[in-house]
Amino acid sequence: MEPVLLEQNKKKSLHPSLLTEIARKRAFLKGTIDPFRCVAKELELVERNLARSIRCAEQVLTDISAHLILGGGKRVRPMVTLLAFKVVGGKKTEDIVDIATAIELIHTATLLHDDILDGADCRRGKESDYKKFGLKATLVAGDFLFIKAFEFAGKFDATVVQWTADACTRLTEGEILQGFFNRKLEVTLEDYLEIVRRKTASLFQTGAKVGAYLAGAGPSFVEEMGRYGSNLGIAFQIIDDVLDVVGHKELLGKPVGMDLRDGNPSLPIILAIREGQRAVAEAFQSDSLTEEMIRTAVDAIGRGPAIAKAKTFSRSYAEMAFKPVQKLPPSPYRNGLKTLVQLIVERDF
Amino acid sequence: MEPVLLEQNKKKSLHPSLLTEIARKRAFLKGTIDPFRCVAKELELVERNLARSIRCAEQVLTDISAHLILGGGKRVRPMVTLLAFKVVGGKKTEDIVDIATAIELIHTATLLHDDILDGADCRRGKESDYKKFGLKATLVAGDFLFIKAFEFAGKFDATVVQWTADACTRLTEGEILQGFFNRKLEVTLEDYLEIVRRKTASLFQTGAKVGAYLAGAGPSFVEEMGRYGSNLGIAFQIIDDVLDVVGHKELLGKPVGMDLRDGNPSLPIILAIREGQRAVAEAFQSDSLTEEMIRTAVDAIGRGPAIAKAKTFSRSYAEMAFKPVQKLPPSPYRNGLKTLVQLIVERDF
Repeated sequence: MEPVLLEQNKKKSLHPSLLTEIARKRAFLKGTIDPFRCVAKELELVERNLARSIRCAEQVLTDISAHLILGGGKRVRPMVTLLAFKVVGGKKTEDIVDIATAIELIHTATLLHDDILDGADCRRGKESDYKKFGLKATLVAGDFLFIKAFEFAGKFDATVVQWTADACTRLTEGEILQGFFNRKLEVTLEDYLEIVRRKTASLFQTGAKVGAYLAGAGPSFVEEMGRYGSNLGIAFQIIDDVLDVVGHKELLGKPVGMDLRDGNPSLPIILAIREGQRAVAEAFQSDSLTEEMIRTAVDAIGRGPAIAKAKTFSRSYAEMAFKPVQKLPPSPYRNGLKTLVQLIVERDF
Repeated sequence: MEPVLLEQNKKKSLHPSLLTEIARKRAFLKGTIDPFRCVAKELELVERNLARSIRCAEQVLTDISAHLILGGGKRVRPMVTLLAFKVVGGKKTEDIVDIATAIELIHTATLLHDDILDGADCRRGKESDYKKFGLKATLVAGDFLFIKAFEFAGKFDATVVQWTADACTRLTEGEILQGFFNRKLEVTLEDYLEIVRRKTASLFQTGAKVGAYLAGAGPSFVEEMGRYGSNLGIAFQIIDDVLDVVGHKELLGKPVGMDLRDGNPSLPIILAIREGQRAVAEAFQSDSLTEEMIRTAVDAIGRGPAIAKAKTFSRSYAEMAFKPVQKLPPSPYRNGLKTLVQLIVERDF
């Protein structure tokens, strides 16, 4: 069976529309200093690892995984991991590629399970796996990707295993905390940041720490790179939240207003509620939402100051992310880490 | 927060009704040669690992995990792992306890996700986590337990990591294959055995292999112990299937007829359909089952020869399991492995 699966995966990874989509999404990274180009070789190895890892005896598990993994992810987490490794002068490419693969697999596994939790219809511009393949197969495919991540991460020393496991534990805790504040008006900014630290920033943080650690950096620089990752992750999530209000459906690959629809406390929603936007508060806490209510609330957030405020928040985390990087001697990788921060806060998808 | 959580877990693990339940369930293992007693110390360490591993910042994840893990599992998989280690003369207790813990955590994670897949109301004599805590928290708690398993298994060498990951992959493949044959009359005995090999036997097999391997056994004996585990796992699953028809609700901790209810192709169902039992065939493929249809079909299986045939199957796998053990020099552990096989095919829960 293996050669057949390989052939199919190859075809999938070369499918013109997918390539176009990935190229379009990655075009944002082609600035004057391109953080993607200086780790392009390693990112390509991550892609190969990902395509190889999803092969298994049950075609549907491969199909579900391929649908999401080969469907145009931005690969920001592997990029952070690779740049943090290279910036310290890391040489042993195979190791860093394997842990970067594990981190992307963990992220993808959580996306599959998230789509079940949110009942999501769309993801990355396509029908979600959950909608296309149903709850049962999607749940099992999420487990399958967690297991594949374990296969890649389990070969490292106790420190890397522990950091990776801790990041995953924090992801699940963040998921629970977010569920706790679902449609709850009393959610505060501090609650929001705690959710984001656990649910989004922890994996960025671990990727950056592991990258520096495997390159041989000392404990204090490893921690500094961890702060880079964590602050970058928070900035990234805030922009995700902003785009959910003011983004374009075609670029996002999903309709706007999903956070309101799902009752997830996003930063613009929290800020708009604090501003006294009644339409937003009503929509956020309603469990019988209409399309009209969502449209009205999304418009209200967009017209008020919440979006500008959220962008300011994002930029301040981006600045904090950049601090440890500034201390480093100039190199394409240092510039890569810097540009990545800028592009993440300026992106429109 | 930690001391509070510890306190609560301690209280839970000492709850009299739970202890009674565990004691009642473990009483079956108190034969003339007690496979439980000769690894009692190590099993106690597994229990402590399990109780410690489920502590986390989100109480609901701890609660869901405790509800299932501290709620009277038979610990057959850790027992196989520990006995396979001890029988070869393994000494480094901490290592084997950690991998036995990982294997039980993987098993428990799949139980949580299985209950979602089956929409199960009961598990181990209590309301299922899925029923009690809902889909979202139960799904995340399953991920949490997979992650904890990874924490325990990830510290081992590449061989152990690979075997453990392979067993998990086969679990997910088995889950998909079982789903494929859900309510499908064309399911064959060979399909059944393939499902069971992947979904149940693979974890028993890996436990036994890892046990022998970590004790320093050579490759051929490691493979033989793997066959012990695999055949024991198949015998175990067949008895599970039999008890789903002729077991007692109180001993099982769930109603009989669950396989028919869920449309899962169990061995007695497949055999009864082959015998031409029309009530069974109708109930198995119906997606609008009534309680009356289930009762009639369960009675029909019980009256026909399917149960006796299934027990014969189970005994033949038990005999195959015992073959590699017979070659070993006499020891309490060899007797433990032997008695475990006998008790598993003779159990009534």
